[in-house]
Amino acid sequence: MHSIVLLGSGNVAHHLFDAFSKVNSVTITQVYGRTEASLAHFNKKCSVTTNPSQIQDATVYLLAVNDDAIIEVSGLVKNKKGLVCHTSGAVSLKNLITARKGVFYPLQSFTKNQGIDFKNIPICVEAETNTDILLLQEIASTISNNVHAINSDQRRKLHLAAVFVNNFTNHLFQKGAEICQQEGLSFELLKPLIQETVDKLHDLAPKAAQTGPARRNDTNTMQRHLDELKHPLDKKLYQLLSESIKNTYEKEL
Amino acid sequence: MHSIVLLGSGNVAHHLFDAFSKVNSVTITQVYGRTEASLAHFNKKCSVTTNPSQIQDATVYLLAVNDDAIIEVSGLVKNKKGLVCHTSGAVSLKNLITARKGVFYPLQSFTKNQGIDFKNIPICVEAETNTDILLLQEIASTISNNVHAINSDQRRKLHLAAVFVNNFTNHLFQKGAEICQQEGLSFELLKPLIQETVDKLHDLAPKAAQTGPARRNDTNTMQRHLDELKHPLDKKLYQLLSESIKNTYEKEL
Repeated sequence: MHSIVLLGSGNVAHHLFDAFSKVNSVTITQVYGRTEASLAHFNKKCSVTTNPSQIQDATVYLLAVNDDAIIEVSGLVKNKKGLVCHTSGAVSLKNLITARKGVFYPLQSFTKNQGIDFKNIPICVEAETNTDILLLQEIASTISNNVHAINSDQRRKLHLAAVFVNNFTNHLFQKGAEICQQEGLSFELLKPLIQETVDKLHDLAPKAAQTGPARRNDTNTMQRHLDELKHPLDKKLYQLLSESIKNTYEKEL
Repeated sequence: MHSIVLLGSGNVAHHLFDAFSKVNSVTITQVYGRTEASLAHFNKKCSVTTNPSQIQDATVYLLAVNDDAIIEVSGLVKNKKGLVCHTSGAVSLKNLITARKGVFYPLQSFTKNQGIDFKNIPICVEAETNTDILLLQEIASTISNNVHAINSDQRRKLHLAAVFVNNFTNHLFQKGAEICQQEGLSFELLKPLIQETVDKLHDLAPKAAQTGPARRNDTNTMQRHLDELKHPLDKKLYQLLSESIKNTYEKEL
């Protein structure tokens, strides 16, 4: 039986806690948080503490805290024998100031109060020794069927890619919603198209699936669209994204 | 029983033909195409012709042709009594040079050889008289439960919004795939996150769902990401999309 102490009480901590609660071979024995209030979700189900000196011994310490807080919070367990892991996509393993360092990075965007099925979520693990990598793979496999041992460079790139396909994509959805709103149209109208855009990825690589005025180099339509966009920043976005698409297929046009 | 003559033999024509084939109250009686070869898909199931003078009479003529060809192809049926509709999001109703003009715009991105269930696809119809709008609503409702009468301004804006949520979004997926490829990582790793990005739209408007470094104004992470991007156009994309996100939430930060 592996024991985990969870440090952090936010969104990611909630989701990890709930996922491991359903597992037999791994137990979250304690949750550390800064305030009693933040520990309300956990305090009936396991030991909780706001006192760093009361943090228990465990096989693994999972730091589910903001990137900025990783160094500081890892300091709270720097004398522990267990493996200390942060859960960030962007922060180096080296930022941990503990003896045994690891990363336990679930490649997902977590929203509060929204249940998540971890089974298909990629969990990317990293550590300094093979033994620790195997330990993290074993633990991650109890909640996900999609576990990968990757290095720091790969993780940084995955995090960057995630910004493109998640954060930036969501912003384009918002631009679509804005345009609909201006004409008194429901954003619902766009949802089947959005789902189709994603469904296509099962059969086609995005490069092969590309369509639209920029892909066809249909300058008339692009000019009309630019005329319809009012905000200078929206025009720039349209131009740059179109330029980037044209650039991708330049040799083929 | 309403009769339809389909003009065009490409992707959209295939999908519309297959959808109406399953319907009892509407029949595609004929397909017109420029070449015999292009009509192979249709010629065992209905009358086909490459000869404009042999185009039959029908309740509705559906032009499933490229935007550039709409004026020319509508000329082939300019003396017909039926309602002539193009299927484009971007072209004005006025471009049709026929007596009765209409638009029958399925808001979807069609890929060859990929079956589509029309039931949830929004079909946006437009015509110059109420009678013709009702006729198009009746016909569209036989294949979709998501039929909307909209005007030309709204349709143009929908088409623009579709470029953002479909074409531009797909391009961001491609950027994500590229970044993965550079590090020897599979694009499969990003697919659960992409699906989650879309699933969230069921519960949250995209404006409320926004996360990421630009949303938090996390300048350290953004700078690191910019350093990791090699291609100047990719850096510009990252900068502009981040600027646009920051701009959206400026007053809240």
